[in-house]
Amino acid sequence: MILEKIKSEGVAHLSYMIIDGNMAAVIDPRRDIDVYLDLAWQQGANISHVFETHRNEDYVVGSQALAQATGARVFHGQGGKVEHAEPVKEGQQFEIGKARLSVLETPGHTFDSISLVLADTTFSDDPIAVFTGDTLFIGDVGRTDFYPDRREEMGAKLYDSIFNKLLPLGDGVQLYPAHGAGSVCGSGMADREFSTLGYERRNNPMLQLERDEFIKTKSEEHHYQPPYFRKMEELNDKAPGGRALPQVKAASPQQFAELVETGMLVLDLRTPEAFCGAHVPQSLALPSDVLPGYIGWLVSYDDELGLVTDDPASLEDELRGLYRLGYENVVAYLVPGTTAWEASGEDYATIPTLSAGALKKRIDDREDFVLLDVRTLEEYESAHIAQARHLYLGHLPDQMDELPRDKPIVTFCGSGKRAAVAAALLRRQGFSRVENCLGSMSAYQNLGYATTTE
Amino acid sequence: MILEKIKSEGVAHLSYMIIDGNMAAVIDPRRDIDVYLDLAWQQGANISHVFETHRNEDYVVGSQALAQATGARVFHGQGGKVEHAEPVKEGQQFEIGKARLSVLETPGHTFDSISLVLADTTFSDDPIAVFTGDTLFIGDVGRTDFYPDRREEMGAKLYDSIFNKLLPLGDGVQLYPAHGAGSVCGSGMADREFSTLGYERRNNPMLQLERDEFIKTKSEEHHYQPPYFRKMEELNDKAPGGRALPQVKAASPQQFAELVETGMLVLDLRTPEAFCGAHVPQSLALPSDVLPGYIGWLVSYDDELGLVTDDPASLEDELRGLYRLGYENVVAYLVPGTTAWEASGEDYATIPTLSAGALKKRIDDREDFVLLDVRTLEEYESAHIAQARHLYLGHLPDQMDELPRDKPIVTFCGSGKRAAVAAALLRRQGFSRVENCLGSMSAYQNLGYATTTE
Amino acid sequence: MILEKIKSEGVAHLSYMIIDGNMAAVIDPRRDIDVYLDLAWQQGANISHVFETHRNEDYVVGSQALAQATGARVFHGQGGKVEHAEPVKEGQQFEIGKARLSVLETPGHTFDSISLVLADTTFSDDPIAVFTGDTLFIGDVGRTDFYPDRREEMGAKLYDSIFNKLLPLGDGVQLYPAHGAGSVCGSGMADREFSTLGYERRNNPMLQLERDEFIKTKSEEHHYQPPYFRKMEELNDKAPGGRALPQVKAASPQQFAELVETGMLVLDLRTPEAFCGAHVPQSLALPSDVLPGYIGWLVSYDDELGLVTDDPASLEDELRGLYRLGYENVVAYLVPGTTAWEASGEDYATIPTLSAGALKKRIDDREDFVLLDVRTLEEYESAHIAQARHLYLGHLPDQMDELPRDKPIVTFCGSGKRAAVAAALLRRQGFSRVENCLGSMSAYQNLGYATTTE
Amino acid sequence: MILEKIKSEGVAHLSYMIIDGNMAAVIDPRRDIDVYLDLAWQQGANISHVFETHRNEDYVVGSQALAQATGARVFHGQGGKVEHAEPVKEGQQFEIGKARLSVLETPGHTFDSISLVLADTTFSDDPIAVFTGDTLFIGDVGRTDFYPDRREEMGAKLYDSIFNKLLPLGDGVQLYPAHGAGSVCGSGMADREFSTLGYERRNNPMLQLERDEFIKTKSEEHHYQPPYFRKMEELNDKAPGGRALPQVKAASPQQFAELVETGMLVLDLRTPEAFCGAHVPQSLALPSDVLPGYIGWLVSYDDELGLVTDDPASLEDELRGLYRLGYENVVAYLVPGTTAWEASGEDYATIPTLSAGALKKRIDDREDFVLLDVRTLEEYESAHIAQARHLYLGHLPDQMDELPRDKPIVTFCGSGKRAAVAAALLRRQGFSRVENCLGSMSAYQNLGYATTTE
Repeated sequence: MILEKIKSEGVAHLSYMIIDGNMAAVIDPRRDIDVYLDLAWQQGANISHVFETHRNEDYVVGSQALAQATGARVFHGQGGKVEHAEPVKEGQQFEIGKARLSVLETPGHTFDSISLVLADTTFSDDPIAVFTGDTLFIGDVGRTDFYPDRREEMGAKLYDSIFNKLLPLGDGVQLYPAHGAGSVCGSGMADREFSTLGYERRNNPMLQLERDEFIKTKSEEHHYQPPYFRKMEELNDKAPGGRALPQVKAASPQQFAELVETGMLVLDLRTPEAFCGAHVPQSLALPSDVLPGYIGWLVSYDDELGLVTDDPASLEDELRGLYRLGYENVVAYLVPGTTAWEASGEDYATIPTLSAGALKKRIDDREDFVLLDVRTLEEYESAHIAQARHLYLGHLPDQMDELPRDKPIVTFCGSGKRAAVAAALLRRQGFSRVENCLGSMSAYQNLGYATTTE
Repeated sequence: MILEKIKSEGVAHLSYMIIDGNMAAVIDPRRDIDVYLDLAWQQGANISHVFETHRNEDYVVGSQALAQATGARVFHGQGGKVEHAEPVKEGQQFEIGKARLSVLETPGHTFDSISLVLADTTFSDDPIAVFTGDTLFIGDVGRTDFYPDRREEMGAKLYDSIFNKLLPLGDGVQLYPAHGAGSVCGSGMADREFSTLGYERRNNPMLQLERDEFIKTKSEEHHYQPPYFRKMEELNDKAPGGRALPQVKAASPQQFAELVETGMLVLDLRTPEAFCGAHVPQSLALPSDVLPGYIGWLVSYDDELGLVTDDPASLEDELRGLYRLGYENVVAYLVPGTTAWEASGEDYATIPTLSAGALKKRIDDREDFVLLDVRTLEEYESAHIAQARHLYLGHLPDQMDELPRDKPIVTFCGSGKRAAVAAALLRRQGFSRVENCLGSMSAYQNLGYATTTE
Repeated sequence: MILEKIKSEGVAHLSYMIIDGNMAAVIDPRRDIDVYLDLAWQQGANISHVFETHRNEDYVVGSQALAQATGARVFHGQGGKVEHAEPVKEGQQFEIGKARLSVLETPGHTFDSISLVLADTTFSDDPIAVFTGDTLFIGDVGRTDFYPDRREEMGAKLYDSIFNKLLPLGDGVQLYPAHGAGSVCGSGMADREFSTLGYERRNNPMLQLERDEFIKTKSEEHHYQPPYFRKMEELNDKAPGGRALPQVKAASPQQFAELVETGMLVLDLRTPEAFCGAHVPQSLALPSDVLPGYIGWLVSYDDELGLVTDDPASLEDELRGLYRLGYENVVAYLVPGTTAWEASGEDYATIPTLSAGALKKRIDDREDFVLLDVRTLEEYESAHIAQARHLYLGHLPDQMDELPRDKPIVTFCGSGKRAAVAAALLRRQGFSRVENCLGSMSAYQNLGYATTTE
Repeated sequence: MILEKIKSEGVAHLSYMIIDGNMAAVIDPRRDIDVYLDLAWQQGANISHVFETHRNEDYVVGSQALAQATGARVFHGQGGKVEHAEPVKEGQQFEIGKARLSVLETPGHTFDSISLVLADTTFSDDPIAVFTGDTLFIGDVGRTDFYPDRREEMGAKLYDSIFNKLLPLGDGVQLYPAHGAGSVCGSGMADREFSTLGYERRNNPMLQLERDEFIKTKSEEHHYQPPYFRKMEELNDKAPGGRALPQVKAASPQQFAELVETGMLVLDLRTPEAFCGAHVPQSLALPSDVLPGYIGWLVSYDDELGLVTDDPASLEDELRGLYRLGYENVVAYLVPGTTAWEASGEDYATIPTLSAGALKKRIDDREDFVLLDVRTLEEYESAHIAQARHLYLGHLPDQMDELPRDKPIVTFCGSGKRAAVAAALLRRQGFSRVENCLGSMSAYQNLGYATTTE
């Protein structure tokens, strides 16, 4: 029996494949399904079952694509409006060779959430592992904010799912959730992708709470929901069929400039240092590891997109990442890169940077400027610079008007990456005196400067 | 924190790498260490610690090679005569970033056996996983036959190590042993490479026994010890330094034939069907998946070896496999393959095959022949054909004289693979009327023919 | 400027990609086009032009698939009935960055054959290379037998194309044909994939002939045209669009046996030795390197196919090879392999083998048997055993009735591979006394036995 | 017969492997020899011969390493002081299966230069290709400046080697030189890696000159010889044996900073944009594609080196590149990258950039600043800005004192890459008012601004 974890970097999504004999099941497949087909191939197995732990909102699911390619059946919990899957309910069992998957209804994150319990029937009916979707993570639990009016209800459901359904499976059951650290689906996840119910029972901070306290905490938690991710929910109600990655035009600087003229939005996926050093004017900085969490706030599905990355080898990964999030309209990428753009004579822009030390000095000197902290409210509340003005990066496009245009603005985040995005957004809207604090809060704290939680 | 399992197919050896921050530890490295160096590279980490769970007898350990390449320190339990490692004792702790490894002395398989307990100190001091070496496997426990006079003592030690040291760590602790199914280090291992102490406590057949029963069972267990594997113990007392895989001559049929003339032993790594179809005369059949368990019985470390495989892409894997077992004197391989040998005009040999159905008919017809069952005693005792004569494949070279030369011999095993090896051995010694029962016991039973356990 | 040769093993087909700046052209693409897309990607180029040197008859062209994926235009010579391409005529030029491709009409192999002349306009208008399709090969020239009534005319056209169009380009022009050694499109090709017009002018045996002699030789040449390859001509008149490789069921022995029951034809792609050793009854031996040249004679496009190969890693390559030849209806492959088939208790068949030495002895002993030589007429005429009966492998299915069923038949070819195919065909039709001469003519001659050309 | 070209990017070095039957020869192997061993392996061949076309000065040769690994013999022309090779002279022949390599003495670039003529003896003794080392390139000829006092003599020898030895081989001979475009061994090479003697005879600009003119041109050519590359000549007189790539420490920002403290020189291999955006103070910018041509001027073999690259996947390639140039003392690389450095609170530096348009405005405004053009003399003379001061990048460390410390300096090159290196060098020496003109001459000309050749 083979259990393979397939990780999609960026969205930090975890899907799983269980193979026994010549049968295979996939849990929560991503949209670019070649990885599952290849694994089945290598193992001499046929994918016959696909399970969705819930209707996902943060990536586009590959169930339908996988079903089309393999003839597999797709299963989903009850209570949703998913059209492409057969509904399953508590207690249903599926045999994948000697592996048995049993359905456990575990609502809370959504109404249709299920967990799948794995048994190795060669040995016994005892559970050996459980796939918990977005119900229970390693070090955290699922979000309960998708039904704003019913947060208490959802929190209670989640508690009961965990305490009455999952934990009773026993301490010795391995835990396989749908996300790892870095996901927008939880902020407290461990930077470790293996655990057991027993370890979580004792060490997951949320599982140390009493029921009331748990519900209260979940109800008061602050979460963000990127507006464009609504499309993913719609997509996942049907699940798109398979298609190849889009072919993207390799555009010379001149061709790229012409596309920019006609309205193409440039996404600059390079590092913040490179972006600050020089970039195509009006482009939006979206460093690769920032993109998955923020593109849904900043980029419409209707925009035509052009990519800038100086590493052509990464391009396929970048396109895959966008594709998993439902962004398919990438029309061009700049070749051979930024230096060619500059050498072509096209204009380029830069963003001045500011170190944490220089920032401290400005504060001490009482200079007149806006220190714009674009981190999440949670981060901000845990520690911030007293003078900072908080405005979450995802809200910046809509609330930018609140910022003064006649003062210098220093963008600030955890390390300087999101600050680069913020700086790019401000520059796109005509703010001219923008600086990026590379290093940001991490450097500020490492240098021992005072912060506050007020 | 990253925990990576590195599997060496063939010997079914499992080594592990724990990475956190820019530090890394390796547990029980194999001799071709590039896989660890590559992983460290990809993760931006330095290998600083190498642990051996015990002095291995079934593969050559790569500790010394890894230490030379990286400057890492090597650690080993007390009580052995290992020269290249620092001794560690119960309770010693090592911090690999936020990962903590603690030593647990768990003798029984050997005197120097240790287990390593992993904690994620970001969360707590609780154990999250344990690396048990050859003490506790998934579905089985370690062998206790290496000190023939002290088997009861070793069995008792093993029981106490498991019940007093390992299981008390808690049900929710993940179990990472040094071997998976297919290893010569245990016959009852699960065909599944993930488990927990809790699952084993309830489902591992050996852990259901009372202490006395456990010791008795272990004392009475029958195991084989390939004679040439003694060299691995010697090698592992010092651990060889790193060296490249041997360069092997690509030999045309004529060149290969000349080497055979001068005494080179030909190992034919192809399938039993291909071997039976045609092979270089006097060659020894050793299908890739049979080789690790039997080469130590059949091939001296002093022999010069020539390889036959019709898949050049597999050659590196084959050489790696031999290298891990300490066989470095491969001098040539046949190119471009067996058909070229035949086309060159060199003579070739064949082995007639016999299906299970035809075998049954011969038995029913009371024909006069020897049915030679070369499986392990354990397999033989669990079910065999009444007329079969048992002679373990590993013992065949020494006990061949007991077989009649004037009668047809049908070799027989589980599927026909080891039977092909036996047929090759007999043919090398001049037995001329040898047939291989392809399908063997598996086919015999699937066809519903009667077997016995007498 | 980059010129990349993409070789499809098996059919020994050569396609080419020319890249300059961010533009790219492909000449004679194969049907699985990912290799071209990947190259374009790596080089930051867009495929804008696709050229077909003629309407191919031995593989399915990927022009249409590539056009669909990239928006490229497809070009083809005049005089055919190709629907998916724009016609081009002598002298037309295409600029791929600084690379210029000019059309040369070079009929002879077909009426629509063109060659494409490459110039590097950075330096001059001088030709630097020419892509000759099936007009001129390295060491041979194209076939002229596709219009049986007009062979003299086609031979004359070919001569004139070579001598009046190609060679005048100059000695220093590199030659890039559409096939290399091993193709069914010519038997005299060099086992070397680089040459120049100057080298061919002096060393290509066919170019040493006078015009009349050339035409006569071409008219009298004997070629075979596999009947099922007609479908490829039809396919290539339209060029199929892109689609993924078929998903093929991994079938256990029992499942495979059930499919065989319902009429699935088993193609055994293993070595002849393995096939002779044991195979699924009624299966057709088609060793990988024999398949491309003979499947068109032996396997209908309407057959449902099941594959046997003991190397799962090769399966994708095998499917690609079949796909390139238009065979898409592979429904299953046997897992985990032949040994599992035998172990399942299913019946298996074998083919006795005979060495060249044993064959000679039988001939000397005047035993009564048929020595069936299935090589091409050309091979047979160049040297054969006096007693052999010639019957080309491709004709065997239709002419098998001429063979006596009451005598032993020894199949014979160049090395024993095609003889294995012949043996399989005979066994499928109930010939029971069939033996395969592994080694065949190559061994026979290497042993110094007499052959004749009578 | 297989002819494989192995390109080492960076130094733009071309080595070749000829394989026929199970024999193989390598011409001018690079130091990391795994690529040759892998190819031999895949083809079932033994490397028996290694040829050096001359004693190289721009990369470390792998002959000795390859000989040690395979037992191959190494051959080198006469007249040098190479110790590890057997001398060969005009007319000597070597048979690699059916491939024949014949020695042609072709001095001029060096005294010991040879070319190797390839014949395919299956067809004839005619030459089919020639490996010309640094004697004749595609679009250029070799340098003749290594013996400054004897440049006319060397020029004459080179002319005679080309016109009396190489070109007489015939137009139809393929040309395989030891370098492609981008090498420091010639500036006029074609951006195309295939040609023939016939094409060069007509199109290579240097081959259009009369003998006297040729010698004069070569004598007057200006070339640079990086001082540290002398070590490569010494190394290549003996050829180092094989060893693994150095293991390099993955250093956290803090560890990296400590190493910088103790004198480690930081090489920043990122793009100029990223370097200008933010970098470790005192680091030397050496973008990957600039490094091979300039490191020999700027970095001593005695320096301990630390690398900064934000693409960990490229690290092995970077180390290989340095290793090929003889730089083995890389002690650390920064993980996980520059942003982590900034976030750690360590100080970072930036370089202001200046577009070509802004530069033009400053010139028009007659601002007081130094425009420092660091291109080669040849580039400078072909076109430069009237106000520019020329100082070759390689000479900058020694001649920096000539520059005023009290004025702003704008560094300038072809595109902004070498200008970034110059800016880094100046900043390391305390020049504080340094700006980098990203885009540089390419942008300046593309914008239509006036340049001069005076």
